[in-house]
This record gives sequence, C-alpha cells and structure tokens, in this order.
Amino acid sequence: MEKLKEQLPDGFESLELFLEESYPADIADFLSKLDEEEVKYIFREKLPREIWSEVISYLDHDLMYFLSRFFSESELSDILSDMHPDDAADFLGSMPVGKVKETLNLLRTNKASELKRLLGYDDESAGGLMTTEYLAFYSDQTAQQVLEKLREISPDAEMIYYIYVISRTKELVGVLSVRQLLAAQPDILLEEIMNNNVIKVSVNLDREEVAHIFAKYDLLALPVVNNKNQLMGIITVDDVIDVIEEEATEDIYKMAATADINVERNGLLSGVKKRIPWLLILLVGDLMSGTVIRNFETPLQQVVALAFFIPVLMDMGGNVGTQSLTVVVRGLATGELHFSRFWSHLWEELKVGIVMALILGSSLSVVALLWQDNPVLGLIVGISMFITLVTAIIAGTTIPFIMEAIGADPAVAAGPFITTLIDMSGLFIYFTLATLLMEKLL
Amino acid sequence: MEKLKEQLPDGFESLELFLEESYPADIADFLSKLDEEEVKYIFREKLPREIWSEVISYLDHDLMYFLSRFFSESELSDILSDMHPDDAADFLGSMPVGKVKETLNLLRTNKASELKRLLGYDDESAGGLMTTEYLAFYSDQTAQQVLEKLREISPDAEMIYYIYVISRTKELVGVLSVRQLLAAQPDILLEEIMNNNVIKVSVNLDREEVAHIFAKYDLLALPVVNNKNQLMGIITVDDVIDVIEEEATEDIYKMAATADINVERNGLLSGVKKRIPWLLILLVGDLMSGTVIRNFETPLQQVVALAFFIPVLMDMGGNVGTQSLTVVVRGLATGELHFSRFWSHLWEELKVGIVMALILGSSLSVVALLWQDNPVLGLIVGISMFITLVTAIIAGTTIPFIMEAIGADPAVAAGPFITTLIDMSGLFIYFTLATLLMEKLL
Repeated sequence: MEKLKEQLPDGFESLELFLEESYPADIADFLSKLDEEEVKYIFREKLPREIWSEVISYLDHDLMYFLSRFFSESELSDILSDMHPDDAADFLGSMPVGKVKETLNLLRTNKASELKRLLGYDDESAGGLMTTEYLAFYSDQTAQQVLEKLREISPDAEMIYYIYVISRTKELVGVLSVRQLLAAQPDILLEEIMNNNVIKVSVNLDREEVAHIFAKYDLLALPVVNNKNQLMGIITVDDVIDVIEEEATEDIYKMAATADINVERNGLLSGVKKRIPWLLILLVGDLMSGTVIRNFETPLQQVVALAFFIPVLMDMGGNVGTQSLTVVVRGLATGELHFSRFWSHLWEELKVGIVMALILGSSLSVVALLWQDNPVLGLIVGISMFITLVTAIIAGTTIPFIMEAIGADPAVAAGPFITTLIDMSGLFIYFTLATLLMEKLL
Repeated sequence: MEKLKEQLPDGFESLELFLEESYPADIADFLSKLDEEEVKYIFREKLPREIWSEVISYLDHDLMYFLSRFFSESELSDILSDMHPDDAADFLGSMPVGKVKETLNLLRTNKASELKRLLGYDDESAGGLMTTEYLAFYSDQTAQQVLEKLREISPDAEMIYYIYVISRTKELVGVLSVRQLLAAQPDILLEEIMNNNVIKVSVNLDREEVAHIFAKYDLLALPVVNNKNQLMGIITVDDVIDVIEEEATEDIYKMAATADINVERNGLLSGVKKRIPWLLILLVGDLMSGTVIRNFETPLQQVVALAFFIPVLMDMGGNVGTQSLTVVVRGLATGELHFSRFWSHLWEELKVGIVMALILGSSLSVVALLWQDNPVLGLIVGISMFITLVTAIIAGTTIPFIMEAIGADPAVAAGPFITTLIDMSGLFIYFTLATLLMEKLL
C-alpha cells in the first residue's frame, strides 16, 4: 500500500493526515482514482466509520456497487441509516437486488418503507431527485407552535429554506419563509400568513424540466406532490446543480454521436461498444454519398476538376447545417425555444442562411473561376453551394423540431447524421447541375 | 394594446389578472416577448411599482438597457435600492455610462459605494457573482449575542445557510451552521464552536471554477475573499445554476462554430456577422482540401473510382476526431479531466481508436473490393481509412489539451476546424498511397 502515498493530492504527507483533514467530497475523489484493493484497505483500516456514509454519498455508482458487495448487510444498514434519504436511495439503487432486500430487512421499518418508496421512482424524474427531509406543518397550527417545534428539532440548513403548509389530509396548501414566520404574531394561524400560490412539481416530471423550473424562479427548494396534490418530498437546489451539468454533458455527447468512455474502469471493449455503432451507421451513410458520385462517373471522367470542389461542398453544407441545428437543440434543451416558435425561428434562420449562402456561393464561384478559368464550372459550383447551404439550414432547423414533436431526443439527430444527409443531397445537386450543363463545361 | 391579450399565457383572461397572479419570473418572460412600446405601456400603466425591481432583476440585459434609458434617474435609484445588491449591480452594469453616474449620485452613499465596488468586478469572476448580503459575526462574540441579533434582523432564507465568523480585521476565520448555533451553550464564543476549515474562493476566480466547487461540495453558499483573506461577499447557489447552464451553452455553440442568434431582437446583419466569419475561415480550409485533390489530378483521371471514396474518408475522419475531441473538451469544462491526465487519456483513446480503425478500415476494404472488384483499390482505401482515423483520434485528443495549456478555450478548436484539418490529411494520405500503387491499380 506504499504507492497510495504517490496518489495523494499535493501537500499531504501521509494518508492519515489527508483522510483526517479533507472534506468527504475530496476523499471520494481520491477513492475513485484507486483500484478496488486499495479502496477496501482504506475503508477497513483507515477511514473512521462515522464518515463512511458521507464519503459514500459522494461516490459514483460503479464504486457504490463495488462497496455494496464488499460490505455486510448489517454494515450497509448502518451506513444507510446515517445517510440523507435521497442519498440512501441512490446507494440502494446501485446495489445488487439481493443485497437491497436483505439490507432493507435490517433497517428500522419506517426508514425502510420510506426508502422503498423513494426507490420506486425513476432516477430521471422529480421523485428520483427528492428527499423526504422537509418541514411541513398543518395550516391550523399557530406561528408560535411552529417556532417552538423548530427550536426543538434544530433542523439543518438544507431544510429551513421554506416551511410547507399542508391540510390535515396532507395536501400542499401553502408555503412560508422563516422570515415571515419570525415576523408573525405568535397566535396567528399559518393559513392566515402563508403564500397559497406554491410552485410545485409532480413526482413524475422529468428531471430536466425540474432543473428549468429551479433556474427560472431562482428557487432553493421545490415541493414534489403526487396526483392528489399530497406533499411527497422536496428537491433541494444542490442536487439540481449536478442534474444540469449531467444533462448538458449528455446532450453534448449525443451531438457528437459518442458517449463518455473511461477505459481504465470500464475496459476497452465497452469503450469501443459505446462509439462503433454510431460510426457503422455513419459509414453506410457516407458510402451512399460515394454512390452518388459513382452514379455520375461519366461527367466526372470528362471533367475531373469537378472532384476538386467535393470537399468544400460537403463540409460547408455540414457546417452550416450543424450551426442551425445546434441553436435549435440547445434552445429546446434550455427551454429558450419552444415548438410554438418553429415557424418564426425557421424564418429567422432562413433570412440569415440566404444571406450567408449568397456570400459563400459567390465567393466560391470566383475561386472556381480563378482556379479552373472555366466560368461554367464556377457557375455550377456557386449555385450548388447556394442550394446546398439553404437546404442545410432548412434541414438543420426542421429536423430537431420534428424529433421533439415525435418525442425523440433532438440531440441525437445532431452533428454527424445531419452532415451525412446534407453531403448526399449536396453532391447530388452538384453533379446533376454538372451533367445538365455538361456540353457547356467541355 | 388590444393585441397584448393574444400574447398572454394560456388560461389568463385579462392582462390585469395575469400581472396580479403571476410570479415576477413569469412576468419578465412575458415582457421579453413584447415590443418596446408595449413594455413601456405595462410599466407605466399596469405593473404595480412595488414589484418593478423584482421583475427587472429577471430580465435580460437588452431589456434592462432599454428600461434604464426609459426610466428617470430618480426612478432608477428607487428601483436599485429595492434590489438585492447582486441584481442591482447587474442592472447598473447594463445601463449607459451617463445614467450609471447620475443614478449612483441619487443613491444612499453606503449603498452607492457598495454597488460601485460590485460593479468593479468582472462579470465572469466570483466577484461578479457575489452578493454583499451575508451574515458575519466576530469570533469573540457569544452564541447568545448572535441568536439575539438574528431574531432582530430576521434575515431572508438565502442568508441563513451559514453564518461566517470573521476576525476584528475582517479576515474570514470560520463558518457555523444555524443548527450548530442553536445547539451551542449561550455563553460560548463562536471561535470555540466554529469550523475553521472553510471552503472559500478568491474574488478573481473564474465563474466556471466557482460552479465546479459548488457542484463538487454540494454547497448552498460560498464565501468570497480578497487576497488578504478578508470576507468580501458570498455567492449563493441559485445564481450558480444560471452560470452552469450558460457555460454549457457557450461551449456547445463554440463547438458548432456558431453563436446564438435572435434576429428578431438583434437584426439580420448581426445574425450573419455571428456566423459568417467562422464559415469563411472554414471555406478556405476546405478549398485547401480541394487543392490536395487537385494536386493528384493525374491519378484521379486514370482511376476515377478514387473519387467514390472521398466522402467516406472525409466524414469518418471528422466523426471520429469529433468524438475524441468532445470527450476532452467537455471533460476539461466539467473538471473531470485535467491536464495532468493527458498521457493516460490519450492512451485510452488510442486503444479504442485503433480497434475502431481496424474494424472500419477492413469493412471499407471489403466494400471497395465488392464495388470496384479491385483488391488494390480496396487495400488503399482500407489503409487510408485506418491511418486517417488514428490521426483523427490523436488530433482530436491532443489539440484541445494544447489549447488549454496555452490558455485558449478548447471548445473553439472543436467540430468544424478539426474536421477540416483531418479532411486535408486524410485526402493527402489517400491520394499519396494511390499514386504509389498506381501501376498496380490499373
């Protein structure tokens, strides 16, 4: 275990010192760089048991899974009972099914049933994000009663952003800030001072939507209700930060037709598996572009100069299409764009696109003329460029909207696929024009 | 102003009802869809003055700028004094210089000087994000004194996540949670119960770094200190959410060599200006790819079939390069990847890349053979594909790291540029091989 020292962050003499002085998040970071034997060693020999649960709640799922197989059920149930409910549910979610069952049996029944409920929700939904630690009081309680209760339980910071007010049947009817509470008359009822217009989400709402609501209203916490408007839990803003980063990363990867690979942990094959399928599809698409050229073998043989402009036509179409597409995909993801704005947005893009197509098309004509000293070729190249770019803009703007409309993920359409599509049409336009004007070309 | 009705969100009968029942964020949303006359009308005739400042703090900078020119200095100073300091600084930042000066003159001197200080910080820095509303007490005060003070000022939720402890010379020495405070003996000194290991940032730290720290430690607020370790302000998590979304969007746009365009507001020309420069650069790059082909005119004339594989070689190189590049760009942006991991990451990518290059190269050889029934051509195409893909992986992985190292933004290297680069090298490899094996080809 000597080599552990080398892996320590700068400025730490010994492992003990590091574990003692660092935040759980930093320890988790450190653990994720080690191999499984070293992780076992640290938990067994070095890491004080009282911080196990905190450190684990910062680990990624691969490592959680490994630890859940390494610890005994009784250890696991101890760890879980020290965790916040939402973190505990995450940890349980990463365990092998068998372990989950046995571990839950060892937990306090109310804690266990609480976790079972949380486990029931989709990770991608509001239910999957929420915690069941929140402050709720009945609308017919007085400010005084609430304040006394608060002093008694001395809640931790995350819980006291807002105090939720519920009916005796657990329906969410209002919300209060600590400030309002402190300012209120002791004997006033909550329903008289509460704000009844509560921003809330359903347990099934997609977590990306949840993130947008946080961003839009600058919220610190958001109550989650079931279809009977009963308060099921709250989502705190610190959990939403990770969601926003993860969702953005997902989109970016999809747009490049890839996925994160961590060969070190996941092994070479899974790394290849994550990328090659897309590439094989794209390979077929590109071969189709090849067949387009192949079908025009004769004109190409007669005027080989036609080939010189294949790269520029292909790439520029792809670039312009990707620009339009990126704006739409991101706009839909952040909620800035909405389906209702399709036509106006398409029109905006078209205006810009036509101007750009004119500039690029004409400048390309000039280049072609200078290169080959053949005005007809210049004309063909210029016109093809113009048509290709306008097509690219229309495709790049329309396709993600269509995917959104049919409930598919717009990001998947992005980059490579649209490019391949535009290549084909561009080459087709180019060579068709060339064939039509062939005798003039020669 | 009749047409205003049509623009109301669904379910609202009248403008009055909407303005009365909606959250400031929703009203701001609505205003951003209207033309300037309508916005003026709503502020003058409809919107109750007491919510002006809240609504304005949710508007984008264009609209803030417009309003700052529309309101009088005295109105502006009223609005500013109702705002949170960080929002007020944003609003001031969007005003014409003249207005700023005159408006500050009308403000309470201490508020004015506070805002001047906040204005001094770069928007992209921790200083630009922070607010000066926070709770700080001296280390030699007692828990009792602090609790009394808290009841007296009844702070709003955003402020009571943490209580910061400072020395008499304003140096940040510790932090306390409300919970610790409530649990403490009344007469104990803060320095005896505080946590001295405070996570803090410097006023000049880039806001993207700030966001990473929030995400990593699940913080609710982060103290900001100057180079003397004096507490200058705090950043609250709700402001960081916007940062993360904006930074992700910026990166995504850069990777597509574009920028958001809102022709409606910014006009057609600015829309074109935002995209055409990149495209002109790329046009030149693509023409260079064209010249590569041009330099091999003779082999192409002899074996026109060589042209059929230009699209697949170009696109696949671009696709694979973009995949590698995207993983690095995003990894560097989220802090998952660091410069120190360059070699290990490059090695991971290479292993995956070589396997993929073998699969794709050999399958392309087969296709070429079947198409043209020419084993030599198949060989040339396959080998070119293999070399191109491996080059693409190396370029795609290395270039963003280099840009990071020289302090440039890795995202700018992305997508189109790398693609154009790889196209050129790919075509060069392809045609060089072809010329070398020419007599075998015929």
